[in-house]
Amino acid sequence: MNNTFEKVCILGLGLIGGSIGLAIKRSNISNQITGYARSNSTLERAIELGLVDSVKDNLKDAVNNSDLVILATPLSTFRELVEDMSPFLKKGCIITDTGSAKLTVIEDLKDILPNGVEFVPGHPIAGTEESGPDAGFAELFDNRWCILTPTEDNSSNAVDLVKDFWESIGSKVEIMDPMHHDKVLAITSHIPHLIAFNIVGTANNLANVTEKEVVKYSAGGFRDFTRIAASDPKMWSDIFTYNSDAVLEMLDLFSNDLAKLKAAVIKKDSDLLFSNFEKTREVRKNIIDAGQEESDVDFGRKKSEE
Amino acid sequence: MNNTFEKVCILGLGLIGGSIGLAIKRSNISNQITGYARSNSTLERAIELGLVDSVKDNLKDAVNNSDLVILATPLSTFRELVEDMSPFLKKGCIITDTGSAKLTVIEDLKDILPNGVEFVPGHPIAGTEESGPDAGFAELFDNRWCILTPTEDNSSNAVDLVKDFWESIGSKVEIMDPMHHDKVLAITSHIPHLIAFNIVGTANNLANVTEKEVVKYSAGGFRDFTRIAASDPKMWSDIFTYNSDAVLEMLDLFSNDLAKLKAAVIKKDSDLLFSNFEKTREVRKNIIDAGQEESDVDFGRKKSEE
Repeated sequence: MNNTFEKVCILGLGLIGGSIGLAIKRSNISNQITGYARSNSTLERAIELGLVDSVKDNLKDAVNNSDLVILATPLSTFRELVEDMSPFLKKGCIITDTGSAKLTVIEDLKDILPNGVEFVPGHPIAGTEESGPDAGFAELFDNRWCILTPTEDNSSNAVDLVKDFWESIGSKVEIMDPMHHDKVLAITSHIPHLIAFNIVGTANNLANVTEKEVVKYSAGGFRDFTRIAASDPKMWSDIFTYNSDAVLEMLDLFSNDLAKLKAAVIKKDSDLLFSNFEKTREVRKNIIDAGQEESDVDFGRKKSEE
Repeated sequence: MNNTFEKVCILGLGLIGGSIGLAIKRSNISNQITGYARSNSTLERAIELGLVDSVKDNLKDAVNNSDLVILATPLSTFRELVEDMSPFLKKGCIITDTGSAKLTVIEDLKDILPNGVEFVPGHPIAGTEESGPDAGFAELFDNRWCILTPTEDNSSNAVDLVKDFWESIGSKVEIMDPMHHDKVLAITSHIPHLIAFNIVGTANNLANVTEKEVVKYSAGGFRDFTRIAASDPKMWSDIFTYNSDAVLEMLDLFSNDLAKLKAAVIKKDSDLLFSNFEKTREVRKNIIDAGQEESDVDFGRKKSEE
C-alpha cells in the first residue's frame, strides 16, 4: 500500500521521530516528509542526516497540507502542539502519536481537535537508551510491536490507515484498550525504568562505596540497569506523571513482592529464594522464543570469533 | 610468568569453572588442568568441550598433587568440599574461590584448612546469564576485574601467586577488604539481581496482564531485567543467604530512595523526576568510558549493516 499518506509531518526529530523519517524513506510510502523541532540545531542535523525531506521552524509551515501528523515529542508537549497547529490542519488530516501513556493523552487532546481531524493514539514499543536526531535508524521498528489504542471517536478507516502506516515501516500492530495499554506498559516498561533509575541513583549516593567502584565493578549486573537509566530524562519524567495511576498500582505489587523476597533473605531461606528464581528464568526463555530478544546478545562481552 | 602452578584443579565446571579452564589453556600457564563436578554428564561434556585436560569423579583424585585448587561451585558447597578434600591436599597447595560473597566464606573455611594449605578468597566480576559447561568461553575474564580479599592469615606470597594467576588469564586484579567487597557487590550486583528477579516475578504473577503480553512488549525495558533474572538460581539463592547483611543494608537504601520517587510520582512532580533522571544518565557514560561496557551493545536490535 504505497503513498497512503501523500504528505507526512513528524513533530520531534529525536530517536523515535528520526527513525520514523528514515523508515518512511526506506519504504517509499510517502512523497514528502516534513520535520519540525524546536531547536535549530536539531533541524539542521535532521537535514544533514537525511531523516526527512525538509524541515520547518514553525508549526504552520510544518503541518501545512499534511495527511498525517506524528507527535514524537515528550507527552507533556502534545496538548500545546495540537492547540497551536489546529488552525493550520487540513480537513481529513490524521494525527497520531508515539507516546508511552495513552489514557491521559486521549483526555488531553479530546476537546481541542478541530472538526474533520482525527487523533489515533499509538505507541511503538521500540527504543534504545540513546536520544536525539543522531540516534535514529531505519530498522528501529522492524519486527517490534506498535500498539494502537483507538477510542469511540475514531473511524475504522483512520485506524486502518494508521495501522497500515506502521506495518509499512516494519512494525507489527496490536489494537488495545487504552487503560489496558497503560497497565501493560507500566509493568513491562515504566516500572523497570523507575527501578533502574532508582538503583543507579542509590548507588550514586552511597557514602561507603565510591562512584569509581560502582563503575569498575558494574559488570556484575549493575551495568544492565544503567542502560535503561540512561534514557531521555524529559521523556521519562513525563511518562511517570502521565501514567501515574498504573505506575503506582504496579509499584505497589512490586514492593509487596520485594518485601517477601526481603523476608526470605532475612530468614536465609535459600530454598524459597531458589524456587522463586527458577520461575523467573523461564520468562527469559519465552522472550527469546518470541523473537523479542536474541539469546546471543553479548552485553559488552565479545565471545571468541570462531 | 609461566607454569606458576604446575597442576591446577577446578571444582565445578559451569560457566565460571569452564571458562577458567579454557582461559588457562589459552595462556599456557599450567601443564595439567583437572576438573571435578558432581554430575557425570558435566564431566563428560567438559571433556568433549576440552574445558580441562582431564576430569575426575572423586575429590581425592581430583585434588591429588594440585598446586592450586579453585572452588567454582555455589557458595554453600565450599565448606563441605574443603572438609572432604582436606586429607588429600598437598602441603603448599593454595585454595582460591570464585564466590560472590566473601566474609561468610572466609568464616566458613577458617577453621577447617589443613596445615600448610592457604585459602586466598577471590571473586572474578564477570559472567553471563548462561550456566553449565557449554556456557564457558576463554575470553570471559579479559579486561574484567577480579577482586581478591586476603585475610591476616594469608602470606603475601600466596596472594601474589593468585594475583598473577588471574592476570595471566586476562583479568585485572584489585585487592580489597572482604567486608567492603561484600558491600560493593551488594549494590553493584546483588541488589540489581534481587530486583530483577523480583520484577520478573511480579510481572509473571499479574492477573490483569497476561504472560503473553509481558513477553510481547518486553522491548520496552523489561527484557533487560529478564537477562539477569535468568541467572543460575542455586548460585543466586546462595549469594543472598551468604551476603544477607550487606544485601539488607543496601536494600533499605534502595527502598528509601524508591519511596522518594514514588512520592514524586504521586505528586506528579515532573521536575523532581527530571533532575533525578538527569543524574543517573551520567553514570552510564562513566561505565562506557571505563571500558566495562560497549556503547554499541545492541540488546537484541540489529542496526543497519552499513
